[in-house]
Formats: sequence, C-alpha cells, structure tokens
Amino acid sequence: MTTESRLSMPIGDVMFTQRAIRRLKPDPIPENDLIDILEAAIRAPSGGNSQPWHFLVIRESELREQFAPLYREAWWEKRKAEGINGPEDIPPGKGWPRPAMHLADEIGQAPVIILVCATTKGSGPAASVIPATQNLLLAARALGIGTTLTTLHPQVEDRVHNLLGIPDSAQVVYCIPLGYPRGRFGPTQRKPLSEVSSWDGWGQPNE
Amino acid sequence: MTTESRLSMPIGDVMFTQRAIRRLKPDPIPENDLIDILEAAIRAPSGGNSQPWHFLVIRESELREQFAPLYREAWWEKRKAEGINGPEDIPPGKGWPRPAMHLADEIGQAPVIILVCATTKGSGPAASVIPATQNLLLAARALGIGTTLTTLHPQVEDRVHNLLGIPDSAQVVYCIPLGYPRGRFGPTQRKPLSEVSSWDGWGQPNE
Repeated sequence: MTTESRLSMPIGDVMFTQRAIRRLKPDPIPENDLIDILEAAIRAPSGGNSQPWHFLVIRESELREQFAPLYREAWWEKRKAEGINGPEDIPPGKGWPRPAMHLADEIGQAPVIILVCATTKGSGPAASVIPATQNLLLAARALGIGTTLTTLHPQVEDRVHNLLGIPDSAQVVYCIPLGYPRGRFGPTQRKPLSEVSSWDGWGQPNE
Repeated sequence: MTTESRLSMPIGDVMFTQRAIRRLKPDPIPENDLIDILEAAIRAPSGGNSQPWHFLVIRESELREQFAPLYREAWWEKRKAEGINGPEDIPPGKGWPRPAMHLADEIGQAPVIILVCATTKGSGPAASVIPATQNLLLAARALGIGTTLTTLHPQVEDRVHNLLGIPDSAQVVYCIPLGYPRGRFGPTQRKPLSEVSSWDGWGQPNE
C-alpha cells in the first residue's frame, strides 16, 4: 500500500475532528506512520515550489529527555511575557494554559517530537513551512495520532541547535509532540463562519 | 448533508493531487461549496484558539473587474524586485513564472476570489491564518475546485483596502482565485523526503 492509500479517512472527518491533543500515551508510533505523515506534509505548496522545510524527528528517549527541560524552560519564558511567573498564576480549571503547562512537564514522554524547521531565517521562510505543517497535523489525525502546534523561545534556541546539530542558517518554526491520545479527538469550538467572513465587501453578509 | 459529509474524498488523495491551478474556467461555483470550503478552513488551529482570520469572498463580476488590474499591478511589482520588468523578460516555455503571468492577466475571470485576511497586523497574525488557508486549499480540491496561493504587494494595499472596505487594522495575507480547472490536478514534484528530513539529529538518515 502507498502512503496515499493508507491516508484513507475522508478529509471532512479529519478536519472537523482535528484538535490539539496534549495528553499523549507513551506507546511508540510505527515508523511507517511517521513516514506517511511526512510524505503528506511535503505535498503542501510553497512559493515557487521552493520547499524551504526540514523535518527533524526526535525518537531516541535520551534525546527527548535532554530536549524536554529546554522545552519546559521555553514554555515558561513565553508565559512570563503574559505576567504568568509560575504555577500559582495559572487559573484553576481545565482551560488553557493549564493543559499546555502539563504538556511542558510531560513532553519528554511523547514517543516522538518533530521540529519543523525552515532552512533559512526570516518570517518569509517561516511562513512557507506552515502549509506543510498543517498537512502534517491532518495526516497524523487521519492515522489516529494526536499532535499540538507549539513554538520554542529565543532563550533556548542556541541550546536546541547544539543538542540536535541544527545549523545556524536554519530556524525551528514549530515543535510538535506526537502520540496516541489519552483524550479524544474533536469537535472543536470556533466562531461561526458569519463572524469571520464577508461577501463582496468587508462586513457584508452572504445573501 | 453536512459540510463534514460532503467533504468525503480520502485525505491522501486530496493531499497528493493538490497543486496550483492557475487556468480556471469561468463557470460559477455553487454557494454551498464555498461555504463548505470556508467551514473547513476555520476548523484549523490557531494560537490560543484566537482565530485571527477573516475571509473576504469576491463574487460580483464588477468588483472582480476592478480588483483584477490591482492584482496585475502587484504581480509585476513583485517581479521588478527579481529584475523582470515586462513580458520580454519572462523565459519561454511552460515553467514558472509564465503561468503566473497569465493568471495576472486573467484573474478577473476567476468566478471567485478569496482574500484571506488577518484581523490584526504583523507577521505573527499573518502566520496564524496559514493553517486555515491550507485547509481551504485542500477542501476546495476535495470538491474539484482549483486554487493557487498568491500574495499582493504593498504598492496596491491602500487601493485594495478602499475597494473592499477592509479596515486599516486588518491585512490581506493571501489572494486565492478559485474555479474549476482547465488543467488537471496533481501529482506534484517534490524533493524526496530523505533530503528534507532528519532523524535524531540534523542530517542523520532514518535507519
């Protein structure tokens, strides 16, 4: 079977049930599934077909253990900018950022972490890898594998580059933990389409 | 039937045949299909579920005729930066940028043009609308509708905002013509996965 035929889930079912999965089982992901996910990712368009992406797959448990504290440090550094300095500032309840805080503690237990990189620096190349990243998330969900889209922080950049041998010319755009969900897939909560679309002029409803 | 059930094409088939379609038939696109495409788009993730996107759908032929010369001007302005000043500088043959030049002449004949906007300025909000944009392209392809991802240029920004009533606080991130293809969908040409992926360290093959 080809990648194409293994990704057999109807696209509507995939899109309407894709959501951030932050609680992951430690069970390993078959290598073939990882390859299918990446083969799907690189089918996405990029300007002039430049394909300025690189997918760095972290599977070794030792490497994940070394990466995990850097991720955790980056997560808290991002929170500082929001005035959240520690767990005592996290509101109670199930809402964000509590699940993201738990992920920051547990990311090393995800069986796979993929760093989506741009092969050159700048916001243009970073933007160019995002369609491929969305393909990656959708293909993972089609195979029953949970993901969530996270970023790192400049404070840990040098150490992440050193740990993984990432060249200075490249940049990490996203950090995506992958694993089988302990929770459930979708549905998601979204603003109604009428609030975020206009027809033939900004603010005009469809009629 | 729901949007979800109408988007019944297997995701692998969609992703492996999605490609830039620049030659479009003028035939109209049913409104239900446009709504399905947008409903799929807004299922994409965004940071903290902020959904900083707005989809401006241009269908009226008069409006498309007024928009078309602005698009054409923007396209040539982008080429100038590459040292391409007119059709005489476009290399012969079917390769890019010739098909894109034809689209710049013909975009007003596309039955629908969607401007994907970010509701605030900056590269962060612009990046946040890209996963939704990729969902849009995939959902269109699943319904047999061709698209291609294009951008405008600062030189036409004010006039595009004026023509369509786009507030200063928002920005146009992508301009996407939609229509039934005169050409064919996929497959696409991509670098092999081994060239754009590493396993447990930059440059390390999967073994």
